[in-house]
Amino acid sequence: MQRVTLLTDFGTADGYVAAMKGVIASIAPDAQLDDVSHDLAQGDVEAAAWSLGAYWRLYPRGTVHLVVVDPGVGSQRRALAVRADGRLLVAPDNGVLSRVLHSAADVQAVHALESAAHRRTDVSNTFHGRDIFAPAAAHLAAGEPIRRMGPRVENPITLEVAEPQVVGEALRGQVVHVDRFGNLITNIPADALPDAASVEVEDAGVGEVRRTYSDVPEGSLLALIGSSGYLEVSERNGSAARRLGLGRGATVHVQRGGGIG
Amino acid sequence: MQRVTLLTDFGTADGYVAAMKGVIASIAPDAQLDDVSHDLAQGDVEAAAWSLGAYWRLYPRGTVHLVVVDPGVGSQRRALAVRADGRLLVAPDNGVLSRVLHSAADVQAVHALESAAHRRTDVSNTFHGRDIFAPAAAHLAAGEPIRRMGPRVENPITLEVAEPQVVGEALRGQVVHVDRFGNLITNIPADALPDAASVEVEDAGVGEVRRTYSDVPEGSLLALIGSSGYLEVSERNGSAARRLGLGRGATVHVQRGGGIG
Amino acid sequence: MQRVTLLTDFGTADGYVAAMKGVIASIAPDAQLDDVSHDLAQGDVEAAAWSLGAYWRLYPRGTVHLVVVDPGVGSQRRALAVRADGRLLVAPDNGVLSRVLHSAADVQAVHALESAAHRRTDVSNTFHGRDIFAPAAAHLAAGEPIRRMGPRVENPITLEVAEPQVVGEALRGQVVHVDRFGNLITNIPADALPDAASVEVEDAGVGEVRRTYSDVPEGSLLALIGSSGYLEVSERNGSAARRLGLGRGATVHVQRGGGIG
Repeated sequence: MQRVTLLTDFGTADGYVAAMKGVIASIAPDAQLDDVSHDLAQGDVEAAAWSLGAYWRLYPRGTVHLVVVDPGVGSQRRALAVRADGRLLVAPDNGVLSRVLHSAADVQAVHALESAAHRRTDVSNTFHGRDIFAPAAAHLAAGEPIRRMGPRVENPITLEVAEPQVVGEALRGQVVHVDRFGNLITNIPADALPDAASVEVEDAGVGEVRRTYSDVPEGSLLALIGSSGYLEVSERNGSAARRLGLGRGATVHVQRGGGIG
Repeated sequence: MQRVTLLTDFGTADGYVAAMKGVIASIAPDAQLDDVSHDLAQGDVEAAAWSLGAYWRLYPRGTVHLVVVDPGVGSQRRALAVRADGRLLVAPDNGVLSRVLHSAADVQAVHALESAAHRRTDVSNTFHGRDIFAPAAAHLAAGEPIRRMGPRVENPITLEVAEPQVVGEALRGQVVHVDRFGNLITNIPADALPDAASVEVEDAGVGEVRRTYSDVPEGSLLALIGSSGYLEVSERNGSAARRLGLGRGATVHVQRGGGIG
Repeated sequence: MQRVTLLTDFGTADGYVAAMKGVIASIAPDAQLDDVSHDLAQGDVEAAAWSLGAYWRLYPRGTVHLVVVDPGVGSQRRALAVRADGRLLVAPDNGVLSRVLHSAADVQAVHALESAAHRRTDVSNTFHGRDIFAPAAAHLAAGEPIRRMGPRVENPITLEVAEPQVVGEALRGQVVHVDRFGNLITNIPADALPDAASVEVEDAGVGEVRRTYSDVPEGSLLALIGSSGYLEVSERNGSAARRLGLGRGATVHVQRGGGIG
């Protein structure tokens, strides 16, 4: 089974995503197409990179992950095919693969999509998803070796991923993603937390780190280790982002010894 | 062909649904994944139960229906696998299977998802969709017997499904679902309606039961038997819900003999 | 691989689309189901026709494209199956196939869906997507000949597709679609443009025709040939539709010689 996943900011209503699917199905007729999302905020490369990080390695080896969030379409930005930990990724070279390149145990190949034989004959200036990225993803799904896509690339663009800092007794990190539930997801990994820790996000005290939502009453804020393995600030059955009026970039402090237990 | 359908309230943008799909694809590589929806109102178990009722038995026997609307994640609520009328269902034990359990001709098995071999090694406290429900659905799709998922459950939770009442000459029911088109769908089945019937919803007279939308002018309210086999109040090419300002729980009266014909 | 694409205005939350998918899977168990969109504006046949035009022929021959945007459900409007350029289309006879019928090199068959053997036993008055269109699409995907669906239709309904007009030295066209990015897509094809051309949309001057977005600064308006091969008015990393307050039907003028070249 050849499987291709699709992540874009195109919405679905205009048929652009379906155009990409049709191109893939024409080249790799047996490919199964799994939608990830087409509802990303337009051109939000950072959010796309975060989303991709949540699933790319949960798929089996050989899966092709196609990502088209491409505010630079038509400019000189490169188009990439990457093999990392046995999965294949096809995306513009704008940082959207940052978390893949950062978290992969083994980045096995990075190539530019320059082969004329692996794109559509007439490449538009505004829709490389259909004309360059989808054909490349389909050829990879159909078994074409990645080196045939074009020349090796040594320096793919990566977004800076801020690491948490030790500041005196405290750990200072930041919110790197806000999800649909209004969870403020930070860059502080579970294993960096002291045994007893008290959390603040900007000026708001959130208290000790809990195990799960039901450890606090409905409507209460809490800090917990989220499903990505990082500290999150949440509101039980509510939105911490809306309640606190905070989003990506907000500062999070973890104080040692602030909790009882 | 193994087929797994997915219904959640996760949205798609954060990659959570794709994480579930990747887990399924890793366990059951040939499974075809059909999205139902990821746009349910957050934590609206009743709406999810209604939606599931619209499709679960239209799929062929052997289909696995995965439903993750799970406001109680991380609490002590159980996780279930059910076989009913030959279809398999995987969901939290919070009532979301109510309409399946209520409408199935034969509920063949109900088991708790407790087998360590059929979940991910590290189960998070906040994302059982990825760590418990998706693996179970995948193992079922791959042919694993349902009894291997965990112990039999005798009393799965079901939501109370209100039945319409006879009140003097009238039948009194209620709106149980409002769909995207603003149709007010009631709990009054077609076969409970008298031959000539006149419909009111709260204080608004709607008139006799029509055959279809085009029986009234554009913008008019009408009552008709909807595709689920229940009485609905609609506005032709409009939204009855918005026009009347009504929703789930609104009272509907059907008067015998109110119509001409 | 049998492949069926689905385009509707149903939304996904109510389970209506999944009901259609279940019907298809029951008749054609190996069919792969590709979602196009379920987010079309309700009853917007013109937008659905445009969207379909963007992908129908990019899919391989043998693909079944199912389109259910059907404000006339339950009325006397016909239901159609069409074979054009080797692809199969199933849709209400309301003009949604206009761009297919207009752009196909070869319209090979047009039949009404009247065969009782190719629909569900009990056909509702409000959900022909489930009861008539999905079964027909599934039977076609499973290899049933199109002539078995019902009698030949000679005169399928088509929407008038306005052609651009020559007015003195200028070309006058109109906006025929606004996409998610706020691009104003016109009916003026690339090959109708003079070598040096200056574009206006209603009262707003847009200037010469550019190659791509990055030819102008962020936030600037531009005219360019879009991915469909037609003139578009866009704002770089913005929405021309919102900026200009314009939409479908807006008038576009192209002046010869207006550019530097």
